[in-house]
Amino acid sequence: MEPHLSFGINKHRMEALVDGVFAIAMTVLVLEIKVPELADPNDRGALLAALAAHVDVIVAYFLSFGLLGVFWVWHHRMANKVARFDGALVACSLAFLSLICFFPFAAALLGRYFGHNRVSLLVYFVVLGAILLAQTIFFTVAMRRGLLLPEIPQAEVRAAMRRNLRGLAGFAFWCSSGLYMLGPWPAAASLTAAALIALYARRWR
Amino acid sequence: MEPHLSFGINKHRMEALVDGVFAIAMTVLVLEIKVPELADPNDRGALLAALAAHVDVIVAYFLSFGLLGVFWVWHHRMANKVARFDGALVACSLAFLSLICFFPFAAALLGRYFGHNRVSLLVYFVVLGAILLAQTIFFTVAMRRGLLLPEIPQAEVRAAMRRNLRGLAGFAFWCSSGLYMLGPWPAAASLTAAALIALYARRWR
Amino acid sequence: MEPHLSFGINKHRMEALVDGVFAIAMTVLVLEIKVPELADPNDRGALLAALAAHVDVIVAYFLSFGLLGVFWVWHHRMANKVARFDGALVACSLAFLSLICFFPFAAALLGRYFGHNRVSLLVYFVVLGAILLAQTIFFTVAMRRGLLLPEIPQAEVRAAMRRNLRGLAGFAFWCSSGLYMLGPWPAAASLTAAALIALYARRWR
Amino acid sequence: MEPHLSFGINKHRMEALVDGVFAIAMTVLVLEIKVPELADPNDRGALLAALAAHVDVIVAYFLSFGLLGVFWVWHHRMANKVARFDGALVACSLAFLSLICFFPFAAALLGRYFGHNRVSLLVYFVVLGAILLAQTIFFTVAMRRGLLLPEIPQAEVRAAMRRNLRGLAGFAFWCSSGLYMLGPWPAAASLTAAALIALYARRWR
Repeated sequence: MEPHLSFGINKHRMEALVDGVFAIAMTVLVLEIKVPELADPNDRGALLAALAAHVDVIVAYFLSFGLLGVFWVWHHRMANKVARFDGALVACSLAFLSLICFFPFAAALLGRYFGHNRVSLLVYFVVLGAILLAQTIFFTVAMRRGLLLPEIPQAEVRAAMRRNLRGLAGFAFWCSSGLYMLGPWPAAASLTAAALIALYARRWR
Repeated sequence: MEPHLSFGINKHRMEALVDGVFAIAMTVLVLEIKVPELADPNDRGALLAALAAHVDVIVAYFLSFGLLGVFWVWHHRMANKVARFDGALVACSLAFLSLICFFPFAAALLGRYFGHNRVSLLVYFVVLGAILLAQTIFFTVAMRRGLLLPEIPQAEVRAAMRRNLRGLAGFAFWCSSGLYMLGPWPAAASLTAAALIALYARRWR
Repeated sequence: MEPHLSFGINKHRMEALVDGVFAIAMTVLVLEIKVPELADPNDRGALLAALAAHVDVIVAYFLSFGLLGVFWVWHHRMANKVARFDGALVACSLAFLSLICFFPFAAALLGRYFGHNRVSLLVYFVVLGAILLAQTIFFTVAMRRGLLLPEIPQAEVRAAMRRNLRGLAGFAFWCSSGLYMLGPWPAAASLTAAALIALYARRWR
Repeated sequence: MEPHLSFGINKHRMEALVDGVFAIAMTVLVLEIKVPELADPNDRGALLAALAAHVDVIVAYFLSFGLLGVFWVWHHRMANKVARFDGALVACSLAFLSLICFFPFAAALLGRYFGHNRVSLLVYFVVLGAILLAQTIFFTVAMRRGLLLPEIPQAEVRAAMRRNLRGLAGFAFWCSSGLYMLGPWPAAASLTAAALIALYARRWR
């Protein structure tokens, strides 16, 4: 029996799990926006002021929702090119999903400490970077192990790979400014990583 | 390659995400109904009284659930007319879903402050209006970009558009009474918007 | 255009919503089991004692999960006989789902006050009864409006109806003993309802 | 009418429920990682220290997520061999799902008391063992009641059964070291169970 078939993860069930996890992670984001408690529940001005003080949490919610949406679309487009899942690709998908489920915690931390404490921004960036890396690894594994749909032209696969790597390099470049607040060395490391990934991306032309 | 196909969001996965988000948003509504804490857990009268004091939260739950149900049916009927999703329509869908996920917060605010504080009602109305607007924009984008199923007669598309716009106008009209409590100008603005939308809806006959 | 078709709720999407709501309601049940807080986190005996004190909450969890499972199977078997959903049947389904989502609150109340306060048991029974009633109404509406699959023999439809009504009557009968603690009149009302439903069920032979 | 067909649980809906429950249980795990509250929200060192103190909770999250992923893949592979669900197999599936939904509580307990209190580890192991047992019973029931796909060769079914039993025996063996901290008898009981299961597994060659 052919090993990949005997492993037998149906693509439509992996999709169902991915869509379910994204739907829940998106909804969990809103649980961080707490209903304000007022000393006098009849005070309209106080409620408006409490909601205004919540504005950064609400903005963080819509920002994080948008990022999850972008990740969903991106993952979807890559998974669309996959013909079948073997054990390694299932493991990559689950690692990706574990980071997606972790993202609401990073978003809650950012919503709670944004404006006060740049460490929350750092955690947010690290989780974002890990998600982008997991997406790139997912596609690389699918490509290396010959799991892509055979009708997809090689040029399109290489273009997708290049897009993933450039996205990763751009993200590492963009983060280096944020990392600078933690000292020059993290920023330099991030810049170096960006340069190395960009160089590697050139090999996929 | 045809650009819409190369974007490649399968309709069935967008549906799975929408159904998942609605299912979770509906369930999250109930998390706002807290189990009352009694000084004496054996006091039946106190528990009945505590539940009676919860009645407005419970009514708000069923009202909000019903509204989510209406939105789900409405969105479903529009999405049924869509043949395929391009990038713009996916963005519209995600914006719509971000408001659906945000709705439980507005419902929790209403359940907490209803009867005390009309600001909670205002937030609820604003979120409802944004959801209705997002639905209308979703259908307009699908129509303008030629993403509807070709077998749907033009008359039915125009009727759906008219229904959306009239629903929006009716909502703006209905809200103007609520907005009056914030002063004459918000109410006048809401009335003007209702009139303009109703006028625009006439153009779709 | 045929009115039911133009309403156009695909059966598979209604199923997706139902399955999603059940999956979440089942999972939300466990959120009521709180991790105990110990004065001394190293005290093994205290943690075992705290978990032992949680036993009724844990039993209530598995009991409620089992009931949701029974409702899911029951609803599934009825929905399997439905050919298409019109507006009235969608409304019945949403009313049923709103009660399913409400059920975790009743289960949390029971888990919190079981053993102390029979009012919690009363609320639990009322919600269970409302769910059973909503299931029966769902099937009655589907039958009356001719929405069942034409290949299902009339005898099987009548048997399903009889089963629903007998389940409802048996539940009302069983509850009357619980309602007796609130006085003789609620118990008598429940017994009368049981008798009337059982009589009505005979008409479906 | 053929009894299994008249019971009529569609396989694709059971899959939808399973995938939904797993997606939510995975996401619920992250709700245990609380955003730390700082005395001074601007203190970066304090936030880093608070996150460092969270490291065991975060490790427990990823570990538990990975275990749920393994259970999902395992269940998926067994369910793939099932042709249809009768009442007994639906009951097994729901019992399995009730343990999966319960798992986040055990994970939360472990995350809260790991390092302090081995009772939390014991509860975690007991829930894990119950999940493994439920999986094995699920497959045994499907095999005994002739619900497997007829095209699957008998040798493959026996190999799957052997794998399940060996996994269970290995788990019981592995647990006995953990159970030793509660005294020699629980450890001996666990070792005996491991030996008996391993002996029974030999019969499936």
